[in-house]
Formats: sequence, structure tokens, C-alpha cells
Amino acid sequence: MKVDVCFSPALYPYYSENDNQKIVVVVDIFRATTTMCAALNNGARCIIPVASIEEAKEYKTKGYLVGAERNVKRCDFADFGNSPFDYTKEAVQGKDVVFTTTNGTQAIEKARNAEYLIIGAFSNISAIAEFCSSRQKDVIVLCAGWNNRFNIEDSLFGGALSALLAQKGYQTSFDATLVAMSMWAEAKVNVRDYINKTEHIKRLEANNLQDSVDYCLSENTINKVPVYDRETGKITIVS
Amino acid sequence: MKVDVCFSPALYPYYSENDNQKIVVVVDIFRATTTMCAALNNGARCIIPVASIEEAKEYKTKGYLVGAERNVKRCDFADFGNSPFDYTKEAVQGKDVVFTTTNGTQAIEKARNAEYLIIGAFSNISAIAEFCSSRQKDVIVLCAGWNNRFNIEDSLFGGALSALLAQKGYQTSFDATLVAMSMWAEAKVNVRDYINKTEHIKRLEANNLQDSVDYCLSENTINKVPVYDRETGKITIVS
Repeated sequence: MKVDVCFSPALYPYYSENDNQKIVVVVDIFRATTTMCAALNNGARCIIPVASIEEAKEYKTKGYLVGAERNVKRCDFADFGNSPFDYTKEAVQGKDVVFTTTNGTQAIEKARNAEYLIIGAFSNISAIAEFCSSRQKDVIVLCAGWNNRFNIEDSLFGGALSALLAQKGYQTSFDATLVAMSMWAEAKVNVRDYINKTEHIKRLEANNLQDSVDYCLSENTINKVPVYDRETGKITIVS
Repeated sequence: MKVDVCFSPALYPYYSENDNQKIVVVVDIFRATTTMCAALNNGARCIIPVASIEEAKEYKTKGYLVGAERNVKRCDFADFGNSPFDYTKEAVQGKDVVFTTTNGTQAIEKARNAEYLIIGAFSNISAIAEFCSSRQKDVIVLCAGWNNRFNIEDSLFGGALSALLAQKGYQTSFDATLVAMSMWAEAKVNVRDYINKTEHIKRLEANNLQDSVDYCLSENTINKVPVYDRETGKITIVS
């Protein structure tokens, strides 16, 4: 089996060959996929990812809980923004949550034909690795990036996951995979330090939203794998 | 001034803001831009880059010298392939050369609105850095990649050029630039060794085309900067 890393949703067409027989791991460390994992871990029944603000608003008028963010800020009409700390047990347990963010939900849309489309974060990285290797399928890590630009934090997750999969016998010979793994080898001694230089940390700090950064970089606080079902359009935990 | 690194022609729309006021350095280390630099250094009057085989054939019937490559191999009808060693003084001096390759010439097409579109390689990297800093313009390194996928060798050049530009006062704070510079910091002690693991080396070796690899990785064998003129569609040395 092989693991490939796609650095931007705009590159996905060049990485998606036979993706209907592969596992695609969508990742948006700051913060959409970290937040989806947290919400589901806190008992949300499902997440309904939608690409546009208009769709999210429509769900809101129907009575759904809605998380909505653009350019790191919570949208006015929404119940929650894009912080994992917004989605507490009290707020989400047993509820369906509609969710739209700048980059994360668009990435999901791109990969909807994957055999398995799953939601990765540092918080559930070992569970993701286990899910992949137990199914013996090729893996594509799809980095959400920032407005289709390369970003460090998602690529770094790609490297960290590739390193785990290498231990489970995966080939890691693609150029992007090699570079992502090099990034992880350099970063893992002090991930926060490595991440401090990134564009997105500056964006979060400028909006006073850096409170969840340490959480977003912590590994294995959650042992669950959110899976997208393209028939229903919902993300749920499948155990 | 800032230097940004765009890892694929497919990402260029997300890196090209205000590119009509910027310098775009197109790079395809293995081997299109290295070869163009070599041909011009050996006295070719100009290079006429064309995106399609059909255009190249048309020029051929008009009597032009034509270099044409697809998937590392020389096209049958062409005078030359994509090796810098094909374009000797004897063959090209004083001649116009039409040129089409799998990735390099397509990248040029993407960036044709740049204020300056120049052709970079390890062979002329210091001349490129000098060209950029003397004009005091923002720089975008446009990596040709492989069929729009990320590749190591072009990104590595992006890191090496960014390191030179940093010494000349350029900001290197974009995520892609930081990662490319990290790649270069790791690679520069033994570039050939670093490059040996890449996808493209395997592709060249499989076609017995690895003879020019050392040349393609050698710095500063040429002190000239090829510049694309979008009015004429020609690449020439402007000294």
C-alpha cells in the first residue's frame, strides 16, 4: 500500500486517480477537522458539512445547530465558530451539527468519491492510522490548505500520518510524502515551536483565537474516526 | 520585498495576485529550464516555447530547429529532446529554437502576465538572485512540477533561491517558502544524495537519461538570465 500527500484541494485532480478504491483523509488542523473530531467526540450525532454560507443559513432557519466560519471568524448568524472549544458536550450531545468553514468543508466536497472519506487531526491520528492499515487500502492525505495555498500545519499532519503508516508497512516514496515526512522529522521534537512560524498562527493571533492551538497540536486525545457518508452527506463516528 | 514559492502550475492562480508587478521565476530543473539556459548560453538566438506538439511540428515544417519532449522522451519528429547536452554550440549558435516539454513550457504559459518572466535553474541561480534584487520586486518561484503534482527538485530550487534572496533582504515568511528553505538547508550538504530519492530520478533512470543529472544540479555554471517577452513570445538573454 502507498500513502500520498496532496498539498491543496486545487491539486486533488492530480492525486485522485482510482480514489474510489482509496481512503482519503481530509485534514484542516487549524481548525475545521480538529473541531469536527471534538464535536463528534463530545456526542454530536452527526456533522453535516456544507460548502456555502447560504446553505448553512438555510439549515439554521430550519432549527439546526450551525457552526460557520469565514477567514477565522465566526459568522454572525451561527451558533458556533470554528473553535473545538465551542462544541461542548452540553451544547452538542445528541444533536446534528451543520458546519461550514473557509477551507475544510470545501476539501470534503472535492474528495466525495473516495471509497472512504475520513476526517483526520492530530487528536485522532493513531486511530486514523489504525483505520487505514486495517483496511489495507492506499491512502491520500488531502490538506485543506488556505484558500488553496500550501500550508505547513496540514502538510505536517500528512508527514506525521505517513510516518505512522510507514511503520505499518506503507510505501512512502512519493515526493510530497517524503517532504511531509521530513517536515515531521524536524518538527516533532517541538511541534509548537515549529508551528509558531506559520502564516496561520499569525492569522489566529491577530484575531485573538490562539487559545486552541495547543489542543489542535495534541496527539491522540480522541480514539475515534469520523467517516463521511456520501449517500446521506453526513459525518458520523463508525466504530 | 517578499519571495513566495508556488509548488505547481495548477496552484498558480492562488499565488499570482498582482503578478504584473512581480518577477516570476519558472523552474523545471529536470530538465526544461536547465536546458533552455544551456541552449541560450551556447548561443541560440532565442527560444520559442510552445505548449503543444502540434505547434512544434508546424514550426518544424517551416524549417525551425525543434526541441520536443513528452514523458522524458524525445519526440520522433524533433531535432532535440530535453537534455541540456543536445543543445551544443555547433547545433544552436545563432539559431532560433522552438521548444516544448511535458511541464516546463506549460508553466511559462501560466505566468505570461508577470512583469518579468524569467527562466531559472541551478546553473544560473546566482544570476537570477541578482536580477531579482537589483529590480527590487516581489518574486514568485513557479515550480513546473510533474503533471501538476508537487516535485522535490523544483521546490528545492525554490528554497535555494529564497535563501539567496533572504541574504539580499527579502522576506521569506510564507509557509511554502519556509518549507522550501528547510528542504534546501537539509539538502545542500549533498544535493545529489538528497535528490536520489525523488520520483523523477527514477523516471530518468528507467529511460537511461540520468547522464545530465549532475549538470542539472550544478550551481552557477552560467551567468545569464533568460527573459520571456510576451509580445514576441520569445525567450532571450537580456544583459
